[in-house]
Amino acid sequence: MISVVVLGTGNVGTHLINAFLENSSIKLIQVYSRRKSALEFIENRVPTTTSLNSLISADVYVIAVSDNAISELSSHLNLENKLVVHTSGASPLNALKNKGNKGVLYPLQTFTKDINVDFKAIPICIETENEKDLFLLENLASKISDNVFMLNFEQRKHLHIAAVFTNNFVNHLYKIGFDICAENRIPFEILYPLIRETANKVIHNEPGAIQTGPAFRNDTQTISNHLNLLSEEKKKLYQLLTDSIKNSHGEKL
Amino acid sequence: MISVVVLGTGNVGTHLINAFLENSSIKLIQVYSRRKSALEFIENRVPTTTSLNSLISADVYVIAVSDNAISELSSHLNLENKLVVHTSGASPLNALKNKGNKGVLYPLQTFTKDINVDFKAIPICIETENEKDLFLLENLASKISDNVFMLNFEQRKHLHIAAVFTNNFVNHLYKIGFDICAENRIPFEILYPLIRETANKVIHNEPGAIQTGPAFRNDTQTISNHLNLLSEEKKKLYQLLTDSIKNSHGEKL
Repeated sequence: MISVVVLGTGNVGTHLINAFLENSSIKLIQVYSRRKSALEFIENRVPTTTSLNSLISADVYVIAVSDNAISELSSHLNLENKLVVHTSGASPLNALKNKGNKGVLYPLQTFTKDINVDFKAIPICIETENEKDLFLLENLASKISDNVFMLNFEQRKHLHIAAVFTNNFVNHLYKIGFDICAENRIPFEILYPLIRETANKVIHNEPGAIQTGPAFRNDTQTISNHLNLLSEEKKKLYQLLTDSIKNSHGEKL
Repeated sequence: MISVVVLGTGNVGTHLINAFLENSSIKLIQVYSRRKSALEFIENRVPTTTSLNSLISADVYVIAVSDNAISELSSHLNLENKLVVHTSGASPLNALKNKGNKGVLYPLQTFTKDINVDFKAIPICIETENEKDLFLLENLASKISDNVFMLNFEQRKHLHIAAVFTNNFVNHLYKIGFDICAENRIPFEILYPLIRETANKVIHNEPGAIQTGPAFRNDTQTISNHLNLLSEEKKKLYQLLTDSIKNSHGEKL
């Protein structure tokens, strides 16, 4: 049985809390947030606190706060011989300023508070300062996920950038598609099969090998027609993405 | 029984040929391509020709060639009282220069020649010059797809742009993610759950309502770290997409 304290109840914190609570071989013994209102949803199930001086003894302390707040929050933790981990893909191990041992437990997924996810399928990237802690953290991570990877910070920060492109930026392109449909009274549902197929294809094929579209075909007439129909901001994105596709596949044109 | 001739054996043509052949209430009676080698794969199953003067009589002629070639090819078709349709989302009805009747049958999907697709799930957008032909074309389209929509050219061309954003550009962002992983010896498979989840989420939620990431959070430190790690071209894309997310969600920051 591994005992855990979670600090932070944002998207990542909330999903980790739920994953820990669902697992019988993990004991979530406390949840911290500096705001009392952010603890209300969990008060009936786990002891909570708004004071860093009231943290109780656990095997692992999981900090799930925004990247900018990791150093400040962890500097207040005087937990000798305890493992403190943050959950950020973009922050190094030594963003942690706690007295005890340090590690990273980075679940690579987009979290939205009210949408349930199957945590078992989510890849978790781990890193620790000491080998002993790596064993403990691997043990904890593998209880909630079937996909645990050991990545160093160099890899993790590049993975995080790759995730920004394939998730955050992709979702923004979906939004642009949604807006274009709405402006022209086209049901966005028409695009669902395409969105699904595009994502499924890349699971089985290298994305560079299955690129299609006007930019890839160098269909200059269509590209110019599209640019003429777009507002300034969408036009800039269309142009830059088109140029980037042409540059990537230039050898084939 | 509707008789059909397909002109063109690129990605769209090949998939349409297969969908027509699989349907017992459609008779694919001929396939045309100007190159004999492009007909080899189908020669044993359907009569073929490389001459537009040898086209035989059918209810519908489906032109599946690149956008730039539609007018030229169709101008050679002297098929009085026959319906000729193109399959382009970006071309108007009158891109067709044939003597007979005109229409559009636009399957909204990304096609890759060697990858099978479930045509029934693919939305097909149709438009015709005459109401009589609309009935015929709707009949043909609904035999191969469960999702047939009547869209005018204004809607279709905007839908096509929306598809470029949500498919072609999305796939290019996947490629950038793939490249970043390869450069840092990270298995691209780590990103599969994220890619799938991002696509699935948008099927049930408005994409603007579920945006996440450094740009959405206005996490300036992470954004600046990412920009410093990227090569010039990826940096330009990262910056522009980040600005666009900020602009879209500015009111929330």
